[in-house]
Amino acid sequence: MDFARPLPSYLIQRYHGWKATTYQGNKAWYRRLAESGQHPRAMVISCCDSRVHVTSIFGADEGEFFIHRNIANLVPPYNPDGEYHGTSAAVEYAVTALGVAHIVVLGHSNCGGVKGCHDMCNGRAPALEEKSSFVGRWMDILRPGVKRISDLPEAEQPRALEKQAVVISLENLMTFPFVRSAVEDDRLTLHGLWTDTGEGGLEQFDPAQGGFVAL
Amino acid sequence: MDFARPLPSYLIQRYHGWKATTYQGNKAWYRRLAESGQHPRAMVISCCDSRVHVTSIFGADEGEFFIHRNIANLVPPYNPDGEYHGTSAAVEYAVTALGVAHIVVLGHSNCGGVKGCHDMCNGRAPALEEKSSFVGRWMDILRPGVKRISDLPEAEQPRALEKQAVVISLENLMTFPFVRSAVEDDRLTLHGLWTDTGEGGLEQFDPAQGGFVAL
Amino acid sequence: MDFARPLPSYLIQRYHGWKATTYQGNKAWYRRLAESGQHPRAMVISCCDSRVHVTSIFGADEGEFFIHRNIANLVPPYNPDGEYHGTSAAVEYAVTALGVAHIVVLGHSNCGGVKGCHDMCNGRAPALEEKSSFVGRWMDILRPGVKRISDLPEAEQPRALEKQAVVISLENLMTFPFVRSAVEDDRLTLHGLWTDTGEGGLEQFDPAQGGFVAL
Amino acid sequence: MDFARPLPSYLIQRYHGWKATTYQGNKAWYRRLAESGQHPRAMVISCCDSRVHVTSIFGADEGEFFIHRNIANLVPPYNPDGEYHGTSAAVEYAVTALGVAHIVVLGHSNCGGVKGCHDMCNGRAPALEEKSSFVGRWMDILRPGVKRISDLPEAEQPRALEKQAVVISLENLMTFPFVRSAVEDDRLTLHGLWTDTGEGGLEQFDPAQGGFVAL
Repeated sequence: MDFARPLPSYLIQRYHGWKATTYQGNKAWYRRLAESGQHPRAMVISCCDSRVHVTSIFGADEGEFFIHRNIANLVPPYNPDGEYHGTSAAVEYAVTALGVAHIVVLGHSNCGGVKGCHDMCNGRAPALEEKSSFVGRWMDILRPGVKRISDLPEAEQPRALEKQAVVISLENLMTFPFVRSAVEDDRLTLHGLWTDTGEGGLEQFDPAQGGFVAL
Repeated sequence: MDFARPLPSYLIQRYHGWKATTYQGNKAWYRRLAESGQHPRAMVISCCDSRVHVTSIFGADEGEFFIHRNIANLVPPYNPDGEYHGTSAAVEYAVTALGVAHIVVLGHSNCGGVKGCHDMCNGRAPALEEKSSFVGRWMDILRPGVKRISDLPEAEQPRALEKQAVVISLENLMTFPFVRSAVEDDRLTLHGLWTDTGEGGLEQFDPAQGGFVAL
Repeated sequence: MDFARPLPSYLIQRYHGWKATTYQGNKAWYRRLAESGQHPRAMVISCCDSRVHVTSIFGADEGEFFIHRNIANLVPPYNPDGEYHGTSAAVEYAVTALGVAHIVVLGHSNCGGVKGCHDMCNGRAPALEEKSSFVGRWMDILRPGVKRISDLPEAEQPRALEKQAVVISLENLMTFPFVRSAVEDDRLTLHGLWTDTGEGGLEQFDPAQGGFVAL
Repeated sequence: MDFARPLPSYLIQRYHGWKATTYQGNKAWYRRLAESGQHPRAMVISCCDSRVHVTSIFGADEGEFFIHRNIANLVPPYNPDGEYHGTSAAVEYAVTALGVAHIVVLGHSNCGGVKGCHDMCNGRAPALEEKSSFVGRWMDILRPGVKRISDLPEAEQPRALEKQAVVISLENLMTFPFVRSAVEDDRLTLHGLWTDTGEGGLEQFDPAQGGFVAL
């Protein structure tokens, strides 16, 4: 463990600034959250990308969102095989332990993971095809989406595939028995969003139109 | 897909507020991030818990941190078996595609996942022992930590186990060849943190002392 | 060149201290910045004054700000006459080569350059009127500001003129075609600040109010 | 002036953090600096590059260094023609008004301005040759340095030219009568430095060896 290093000084400075300002102004709330537990209203599944800040877009404060972030905001299909499934564990905890009322899957523009999947499925990224590529294997979840967008003009495919990452994740969520039953009992609703990080746009999946519509 | 629902109105309202204020004030930056790509300095691995906002603690803005969030901020050991490994994919992308300079593992107080692991390993949570429990199987990653803290007084064990979740994740990170080589080449540093969300405290793992020290 | 001397020992000592501490803790980041280039989000134009540390006020670390510092944080009007224009070169590089999203002009209290300009324009500093006075000629940039504040009580004039140094620089920035087009395309925003170095105050120029407002 | 915009929110947050911590801890000193004026010991001339933080390398606090930053840390030759000369004004103010004891010219690795000059003088950057290029005209100051390094292997030239930017600036400083007389009276010493920002190295110009030597 001698490889662990002290935090870079700029982060220490920023932390002390936060402690002296934001924390001081919200102390009562943070303490109550610590003592009486979290009761988040929604789970958000978004990408790790540094340009996607769900707390910023929705002005969310501590205690509001249970947030899982992974590459390309993907949910794999239900598969209780006894192995490690971080995303499935997060969904299970949110729905069965916390009882969130909403799960929001938030996709975004210029997603590097989705682009990698698109390149891989079109033969332009052989390294991602390797068994040892964690990114490649993770993006396999999105393979069914590549077929669905293959008739679109090449230039439109990446963005369409980013939206498929949302749709497929919603579909996969419904393969979890505890999600399906909560949805059917009206205890949970699912929502699909896609944000254009450069333009600040937000679109939501509308099943009636079979596509995404600007908010 | 007819189960997907329109976004709750309170989120739509907040989004429009963000668009008219924060987005307007930062538009030039968000556009540049969209056009020229992200160059985050650090990856942060934190918990999904709604009380943990790494962007708040460190005053981080869009573009600064590549953030992966899962239950109990855990990293599993390296295992390139061709299956879905969301956490490993995120680490791989951060280190090999983005070249982040730091990985910060951020644990926290009152972690429900860690408490579940503690209960499970002490026979108080049989449901988590089921093969079908995603949370239970995910928390198996932390089992080695339970042994390490078993000599402590019962009341101190949960908090000590939260810190073990950070230490074990750091240890597991070093089992990834691309992490180890980046660390050995001084291209990457690893950092372990634990925050007391109620008190606004922040401690960092100090290998010299073999424990966590307040910042 | 026999006039060049070894660095004073106190600076050598401080450098070795920095190398053993701050550099060690941030080595991975500094190397990445060296290898993959700088991507600063903002350009800051501030005064050379030793009491103005923009990196301190904003907790900025290596890689964040492209910083030009001159006497009284002035930007001259656009004048591509083929002569040396250090400030214009810095602005050109920031906007056209680096594509910064923001230019922040930061004025400050007790500015010696501004005071010199005020004295000169009120006949109290004949030496600054000499053609050979570099400070006097540089402060000519601020002359239009002196007229704007001449109706204020004498005691308020120096501080008001410090703020005019910010306003006039913003106005002059807009005379550069590449600045204007970037602003009009929403790729760049301009910001005017004035800091009271003794009191730690910070005010920003608010066009709606035609003046500076405390943050 | 309706183009001026409010400061991005992340900077406002950081400022409030600084005010509540660093400022509070240093208030007495900052107030004294405001009331009794600055008495900086040294002037530093460094590059605008975001990777060069002279205050970081030398652990400098408010009040210590009078800092001028421009593209490629250049000083033009003495030329009192009545035009705007920002760098010359800064040198004049430091030496004649503040009476600094040292002027340190700090060059650095991977300097974009120096690279542009090298490209321009080797016919690879015609745009920089345009009369309207502020960067090109500013880098003309370094042209004499290009000849001096032309016998070196191509790969070594950029770094050698970065060091020439320091040497030529020192030479040009001595063309200012008030600099020369202060140096000859032992009231001022000049120092040339070059820092490798990625490796944290620092070299100083040693006239006895006619080159730069690691500290």
